[in-house]
Amino acid sequence: MQATSTGLRQKLQQLINNKTKPLGALGRLEELALQIGLVQQTERPVITHPHIMVFAGDHGIAKTGLVNAYPQEVTVQMVLNFLQGGAAINVFCRQHQLALKVVDAGVNFDFTGYDNLMHAKIGFGTNNYLAGPAMTVSQAEQALEKGKQIVAQAAAAGCNCIGFGEMGIGNTSSATLIMSAITGLPVAACAGRGAGLNDEQLVRKISILEEVYHKHRLDQLQHEPIALLCAIGGFEIVMMAGAYLQAVCQRMMVVVDGFIATAAFLIATELHGSSLLDYCVFAHTSNEYGHEKLLHYLNARPLLHLGMRLGEGTGAALAMPLIQSAVHFLNEMASFDSAGVSKAL
Amino acid sequence: MQATSTGLRQKLQQLINNKTKPLGALGRLEELALQIGLVQQTERPVITHPHIMVFAGDHGIAKTGLVNAYPQEVTVQMVLNFLQGGAAINVFCRQHQLALKVVDAGVNFDFTGYDNLMHAKIGFGTNNYLAGPAMTVSQAEQALEKGKQIVAQAAAAGCNCIGFGEMGIGNTSSATLIMSAITGLPVAACAGRGAGLNDEQLVRKISILEEVYHKHRLDQLQHEPIALLCAIGGFEIVMMAGAYLQAVCQRMMVVVDGFIATAAFLIATELHGSSLLDYCVFAHTSNEYGHEKLLHYLNARPLLHLGMRLGEGTGAALAMPLIQSAVHFLNEMASFDSAGVSKAL
Repeated sequence: MQATSTGLRQKLQQLINNKTKPLGALGRLEELALQIGLVQQTERPVITHPHIMVFAGDHGIAKTGLVNAYPQEVTVQMVLNFLQGGAAINVFCRQHQLALKVVDAGVNFDFTGYDNLMHAKIGFGTNNYLAGPAMTVSQAEQALEKGKQIVAQAAAAGCNCIGFGEMGIGNTSSATLIMSAITGLPVAACAGRGAGLNDEQLVRKISILEEVYHKHRLDQLQHEPIALLCAIGGFEIVMMAGAYLQAVCQRMMVVVDGFIATAAFLIATELHGSSLLDYCVFAHTSNEYGHEKLLHYLNARPLLHLGMRLGEGTGAALAMPLIQSAVHFLNEMASFDSAGVSKAL
Repeated sequence: MQATSTGLRQKLQQLINNKTKPLGALGRLEELALQIGLVQQTERPVITHPHIMVFAGDHGIAKTGLVNAYPQEVTVQMVLNFLQGGAAINVFCRQHQLALKVVDAGVNFDFTGYDNLMHAKIGFGTNNYLAGPAMTVSQAEQALEKGKQIVAQAAAAGCNCIGFGEMGIGNTSSATLIMSAITGLPVAACAGRGAGLNDEQLVRKISILEEVYHKHRLDQLQHEPIALLCAIGGFEIVMMAGAYLQAVCQRMMVVVDGFIATAAFLIATELHGSSLLDYCVFAHTSNEYGHEKLLHYLNARPLLHLGMRLGEGTGAALAMPLIQSAVHFLNEMASFDSAGVSKAL
């Protein structure tokens, strides 16, 4: 956070310390309150119109069945499930009164007639990166731009806190390759079971992704995020990266969900730098194998550890009440003075 | 849970597995949904009128200032803060629409005229256990009984999920001695900084508590919970133990808060057996030193790890939305069949 925030930081810390509780006794919530105050540049932050945005896209590789536990059609089916309100993310958004936006970033289906879908389709799924690049530079740039536009719209509608999630059969593979290319960790150290590969299938996935890594010379693309996305990206991942950039640009609180959302965040930091971290809350540690290592690489400490691995923004939705709690205690708790409570001996 | 639940367990697991998500992808929430279904003996559990009950009591030892960071008066002051709505627990209960009941189990103050306080006073604080027993057998039995009555009232009013918290300057000492006596771990392995002792004060606290341990021959009282409570208990801790017993007896979901609430739970298991665990959700790992070890001893896996150490039931309040999420996904999510989503390849 910029240097001008030093005074505000001190004021916020003082406010937090004077609340009727032992020093530091609200733990991570105190850090959150400080962070949100700094992001919003105020001693009285407030969360308005919190959103979950789910970016959906298909992956050419998924047609092969070589890396995915579920058939490609499940992307479409789950998007329809989101639109009909039957998925986990619908349930949690209803519970916490979060606006849910489902974005067609590039699903292999024509969703004509669904008013509650945000149309941002870059294509009917990416190309199979076993055969060639997943997308063109123009497509990647278009996807980034769309992600920015969609977040700008949400901000214009009064949203200042946004959680990003995704749906796309095969997208843990894309995320794995992004993680491997940027962190320098071997593919095998990044790849997990996705929606539920067994041991044998996981070995095959790793072998395929190693082949892709070499084919596209990903070792050369550590700091070439656009080229990396063109090689092995997914439309939903690129769009999410653009969404992160815009959200930070508008000083929104950003809630990062699981493995794929974190890989998209990693791309965003390559595009914009690690100052993005100041605006982010990492919702949870997913059970997807690479996620904990990726969080460690980013020096990120997630709020929840619930053994989840569902995507859709479900971790972000479950973390929202904690973000609200941080804001509420800062705004609503009495101080030692106002409540007439004695300080420590 | 009793053997008759086997069929229900299978049905619940099948329902959970058929929701539109990879098998097990909701992690701990799936375990919670199963547990709540078994507690309520239904495939469609529901949480009604969730409560947080804060039991407050004073400790004679706190008058000495030998083990506590804050003066004894803070118990009264914080109870008044609860009654006026300015404490952290008020904020979180408002946020999550939890009924907050503040129980005077034995505070050193006459709260005449406060309608929103539950009067259950056993005495104006316990006796200083450095000098003699903290309470009489009759007081301990009275406190257990009161705890049962208060929970029975809540149940009669439609509450089926209840989180227990506490307030009482000096009560981490009582909890430390309970933990040490029952687990057999040395006092020094159980004692922490409470509301904020420094290194020197912590060393003194440990030394005082070791003296108390030997004076009252706590090594003899591992399986003598009433005698143990008479020696070193607090009225709020005994009443909370009674509250746990009644809640389980009425098949309520019980949310255990931090170190002191867990020590009271430990007493309850000595009184009633470890089957109590079936009904309990452990809200969080507190930063109070002994808590993680105590949870480990109970084989309990808490939901949250937020570095908190405030008591008041704040951890329980923050865990409530996760419990609700478990119930909601079980009741509201579509199944693979109902949503027309393909299963794994």
